[in-house]
Amino acid sequence: MDFRSDNTAGFAPEMLAALAAANDGARTPYGEDAQSRRVQTHLCELFETDLAAFFVATGTAANVLGLSLLAAPWGVIYCHEEAHIALDECGAPAFYTGGAQLHPLPGAHGRLSAARLAELLPDGLGVVHHAQPAAISLSQATEAVTCYRAADISAIAQVAHTHGLRVHVDGARFANALAFLDASPADLSWRAGVDVLSFGASKNGALAAEAVIVFDPALAASLGYRRKRGGHLFSKMRVLSAQLEAYLADGLWLRLARHANTMAQRLAAGLAAISEVRLVHPVEANEVFVQLPERLIGQLLADGFKFYRWLDDRSTTIRLVTTFDTRETDVAGLVEAVRRHAGTAT
Amino acid sequence: MDFRSDNTAGFAPEMLAALAAANDGARTPYGEDAQSRRVQTHLCELFETDLAAFFVATGTAANVLGLSLLAAPWGVIYCHEEAHIALDECGAPAFYTGGAQLHPLPGAHGRLSAARLAELLPDGLGVVHHAQPAAISLSQATEAVTCYRAADISAIAQVAHTHGLRVHVDGARFANALAFLDASPADLSWRAGVDVLSFGASKNGALAAEAVIVFDPALAASLGYRRKRGGHLFSKMRVLSAQLEAYLADGLWLRLARHANTMAQRLAAGLAAISEVRLVHPVEANEVFVQLPERLIGQLLADGFKFYRWLDDRSTTIRLVTTFDTRETDVAGLVEAVRRHAGTAT
Amino acid sequence: MDFRSDNTAGFAPEMLAALAAANDGARTPYGEDAQSRRVQTHLCELFETDLAAFFVATGTAANVLGLSLLAAPWGVIYCHEEAHIALDECGAPAFYTGGAQLHPLPGAHGRLSAARLAELLPDGLGVVHHAQPAAISLSQATEAVTCYRAADISAIAQVAHTHGLRVHVDGARFANALAFLDASPADLSWRAGVDVLSFGASKNGALAAEAVIVFDPALAASLGYRRKRGGHLFSKMRVLSAQLEAYLADGLWLRLARHANTMAQRLAAGLAAISEVRLVHPVEANEVFVQLPERLIGQLLADGFKFYRWLDDRSTTIRLVTTFDTRETDVAGLVEAVRRHAGTAT
Amino acid sequence: MDFRSDNTAGFAPEMLAALAAANDGARTPYGEDAQSRRVQTHLCELFETDLAAFFVATGTAANVLGLSLLAAPWGVIYCHEEAHIALDECGAPAFYTGGAQLHPLPGAHGRLSAARLAELLPDGLGVVHHAQPAAISLSQATEAVTCYRAADISAIAQVAHTHGLRVHVDGARFANALAFLDASPADLSWRAGVDVLSFGASKNGALAAEAVIVFDPALAASLGYRRKRGGHLFSKMRVLSAQLEAYLADGLWLRLARHANTMAQRLAAGLAAISEVRLVHPVEANEVFVQLPERLIGQLLADGFKFYRWLDDRSTTIRLVTTFDTRETDVAGLVEAVRRHAGTAT
Repeated sequence: MDFRSDNTAGFAPEMLAALAAANDGARTPYGEDAQSRRVQTHLCELFETDLAAFFVATGTAANVLGLSLLAAPWGVIYCHEEAHIALDECGAPAFYTGGAQLHPLPGAHGRLSAARLAELLPDGLGVVHHAQPAAISLSQATEAVTCYRAADISAIAQVAHTHGLRVHVDGARFANALAFLDASPADLSWRAGVDVLSFGASKNGALAAEAVIVFDPALAASLGYRRKRGGHLFSKMRVLSAQLEAYLADGLWLRLARHANTMAQRLAAGLAAISEVRLVHPVEANEVFVQLPERLIGQLLADGFKFYRWLDDRSTTIRLVTTFDTRETDVAGLVEAVRRHAGTAT
Repeated sequence: MDFRSDNTAGFAPEMLAALAAANDGARTPYGEDAQSRRVQTHLCELFETDLAAFFVATGTAANVLGLSLLAAPWGVIYCHEEAHIALDECGAPAFYTGGAQLHPLPGAHGRLSAARLAELLPDGLGVVHHAQPAAISLSQATEAVTCYRAADISAIAQVAHTHGLRVHVDGARFANALAFLDASPADLSWRAGVDVLSFGASKNGALAAEAVIVFDPALAASLGYRRKRGGHLFSKMRVLSAQLEAYLADGLWLRLARHANTMAQRLAAGLAAISEVRLVHPVEANEVFVQLPERLIGQLLADGFKFYRWLDDRSTTIRLVTTFDTRETDVAGLVEAVRRHAGTAT
Repeated sequence: MDFRSDNTAGFAPEMLAALAAANDGARTPYGEDAQSRRVQTHLCELFETDLAAFFVATGTAANVLGLSLLAAPWGVIYCHEEAHIALDECGAPAFYTGGAQLHPLPGAHGRLSAARLAELLPDGLGVVHHAQPAAISLSQATEAVTCYRAADISAIAQVAHTHGLRVHVDGARFANALAFLDASPADLSWRAGVDVLSFGASKNGALAAEAVIVFDPALAASLGYRRKRGGHLFSKMRVLSAQLEAYLADGLWLRLARHANTMAQRLAAGLAAISEVRLVHPVEANEVFVQLPERLIGQLLADGFKFYRWLDDRSTTIRLVTTFDTRETDVAGLVEAVRRHAGTAT
Repeated sequence: MDFRSDNTAGFAPEMLAALAAANDGARTPYGEDAQSRRVQTHLCELFETDLAAFFVATGTAANVLGLSLLAAPWGVIYCHEEAHIALDECGAPAFYTGGAQLHPLPGAHGRLSAARLAELLPDGLGVVHHAQPAAISLSQATEAVTCYRAADISAIAQVAHTHGLRVHVDGARFANALAFLDASPADLSWRAGVDVLSFGASKNGALAAEAVIVFDPALAASLGYRRKRGGHLFSKMRVLSAQLEAYLADGLWLRLARHANTMAQRLAAGLAAISEVRLVHPVEANEVFVQLPERLIGQLLADGFKFYRWLDDRSTTIRLVTTFDTRETDVAGLVEAVRRHAGTAT
């Protein structure tokens, strides 16, 4: 049983069906087909606003194309010190912005605090010696599996906008956050002050599909060029559009996310009842972080369970990720194993 | 009937079947799965050499990641003036190389000439005032639908290597060239002096799949980082690997390319027999360039045929692209229509 | 006697005196001193308009910082095929713009033609596959030593502005052009539609001093950051300001340029009278291009005269550059030598 | 009296004399003159090794050109959190490296610790998701006015080299460190494992002159292109070479640095004797950091003394910088003023 990542999972069957259905003969390439336009319209309806959406295949591409609209080459992007853009994108934000630098910040349970940002922000604005504060990037859900409430985002966005910065959200797990908070897409994005959102599907059942959503279409004027010269403009755009159409149809995306979240809740509940296990973060999406004795970790690995230590190879905190296709028996099996091994220690 | 591009076509059914088969539960992401490794091995066998292959989803990504290995930011890349990298990638080569500039050159029927390159090359090498000659990029097949023979490539590669330059091949239509020349992959690549090849599948039946093939693995040492920070590392790499495995299995790729080539040959033969039609280039792959009277172009468009004028909107040269799924009746229909309209003029 | 370049010359004595005078104790660094502000004011008066000026030490820095305001990373900059930015800046324009590409164009006597630009320009505007036309860069005086009249510039600027492009002037020899045309700085710049000017002094008696002049100060908003992160912000800005103040004081700059021009005129007149010599370009600034028999070139080199063949090592066209400190006897000596050697051939 | 920076000072008279002497007629430009070569030779002798030196005009240019040799675009450069490259170069390191990111670290009195680096370093090496550790940059003297001993540098360099990283030294105040430690240039650089050194003169009496010194000449192969395309290649190179020749002649550089250091020592000694004053860092170069009551700071400013609060506008720690031309009476005047005001409080 594999709890390593939502990237180890396969694809929701609806995705494959949608690709098969999209194999319907010649179409205008590069996104000028009817299906690609329908997805654009669907996103506008879903977010209750006019917006510009650009489809890409990877989360990194979505994040850094979005950030490239917000930060000049001499800009600074504030983010959590465990953010995917800070740790796991091999410098892609600097590449796509032409040199902007990240300013990683600590924050409990993966969240940035508006107060801390307010403290940092005025310094250096307008002084040519210093790189210039340009954007704040939040992860929703966060890398610690927590979610920003609409009010949290608003508070941060107000600090940002007051100082001329923009707000980016890495929504690789946006569906999971939405499902957990039971909020509307609009309330968790532009209404709270978000300027650009990476709207992820790849971690939630798609093969490889993401959308960069820009809530002020004027801000997106250069994005077509940026996507093309990044090599991210698909000729057969239907490959991405078909996935996204299926993803949004009949609320599939939220059903998939809700399932993953539910599995995480059960896993957390099961593990929390075991004395040797300590829950590290509140469980608000599809991951569970627990601290275990080293002995127990070794036993689980020997049993064949797969998961990562967090954040380094010597850590006794492990991350357990549930996905759209995690089965209740997988969860029960893991809980049972931990319970059994914990028992052996006494 | 649509002769606009090999990008307007859908997908070979084998591709969808392969994706369905790849949906087989949890796998290690980012290319560390068995299928991704099998494709690597298959490519080594096919090219009869050790090589490093990196899978990406778009031809632009493949081209510019490959070029980024060959040209420093102050480098010059020589290419044909109609090359895709020169005209249709929105500056992506400069982006990925960190600033290298293209030096577009004329050349009959889309081909560069070794003699012309030999004339240009020694100048400025080692002089800090000048951008430094770094690479030659060929398209195989060319944008004019012609193919470089192995001897053509060798001659160019010799000029290149003599002056310390590397050779890149944009093989978006490598399969079509191979099918036309009936040559081995090795003979048309590393044995002729090619250093890096964009091995394309997207234009030949895949959904979106390409491989950057580097014949000297040592040269590829940085490519993993480059692909990741370009946002081109797929988490669910099986999406690309499954396509490529199906593409190579049982010679599917060559069958598809041969079909497209055959359709182009028939189209060319049919059109060439019509007095008002002039073939612009020898037909050696899956495109036919013909010059027609403006009247005739208008009549075909009115009939509903789709194609592009080449290279500008006022041109009376049109490009007709055939694909893996072009039907004989499509070809016959177009030839018949041209014949009919040509007849009306007399 | 050295006719290789205006870069081989030393410094006008006024420059050294100005530096000595500027050594007057502590000053606020980075351009916030009174002298730096005075030069800004002087430039505004000279150009009869409000403007933003940024001082740097090299012509390349001035050119590419200016261009970085005009072209996005996916932009195209049109220039003459012999332009300094095209041939002699080792890719610096791509570096500072983040990837913009040059589109070199032919043009008689070093000049671009408005008609040719008008023909090229509409193509591809707004199409994401293509790099986007962004700017036209003129050299004044040109690399062929000719000058654009105000009407020439206006015609080009009108084409540029009609299509949303900006106009840059590499004015490394702006003083020479002004002196030759006897025009006002305003008439040869913003009144004719120039957006950004590299205002050069280094080739005309300064040690190392240039100004990037931006005629719409709003356009210059990012230039302070760009100069700093390019490493071109001098801490002891008085080093540059003192030179520029002396340069502009009492018309020194025009006196120096006029002298260099006069020397070129005499040289041209002297050489043109010799039968074996062919003037290649009209002489409108401080250079003379002549074609000579190879024999004669060899004889002059043997005599110890120094000059460059243009543009390559096998050319029999040589470039003779006069400077602020070229002496009449230098000119006479060269003319005399050519006459003598030309005589020997008969 | 101005204690703001070594940048507020003027020039040592020897510099102006050297420039006047260099105004000796035509010379081959771009560093191919005899004086430029002499300085190269002098630096080799001084550092007791073969080395490659590239002259530039600003400290930022020296730092980032040097770093561009050491870090790939996906590289990480470790530095102290108060390093000039981290705080005061507006993102120039990312610009010149093509995207490398800084990893600022804390460290007592401005110094990095080898132990802390050893702890951080192995993580992520070779993993494509992560930016790759590439270089460690030290400031000598540090921004806190302390100096690394040769053994400190060796320890850090050993950690660096063990993990495949290179060592860069920002030597804007290298002369001051050398003067304080009474060490040889070689012992404080390549013998201790330094790969690239920014050898500064601008803060120590020059107008604007620095050298990027690369101890392994092979490593410097691309530096000529990098300097040129950065716009930092002076045509009249003698402008820089004359300054550097005078700087090194007869130990002028060490005399100037020693004077500045001595003034700092006297200032520190005088201030430390005053009860309300707290020395913040050991004084090892030409700066003194002291903490004072806010009242006292206000009184000194009212007296007309000039200095900066460190590092922000609300701080009661002030930085007092002495320079090559600080007079004993300036120091005495400041000490006396502090003593007088301190007295009034009691």
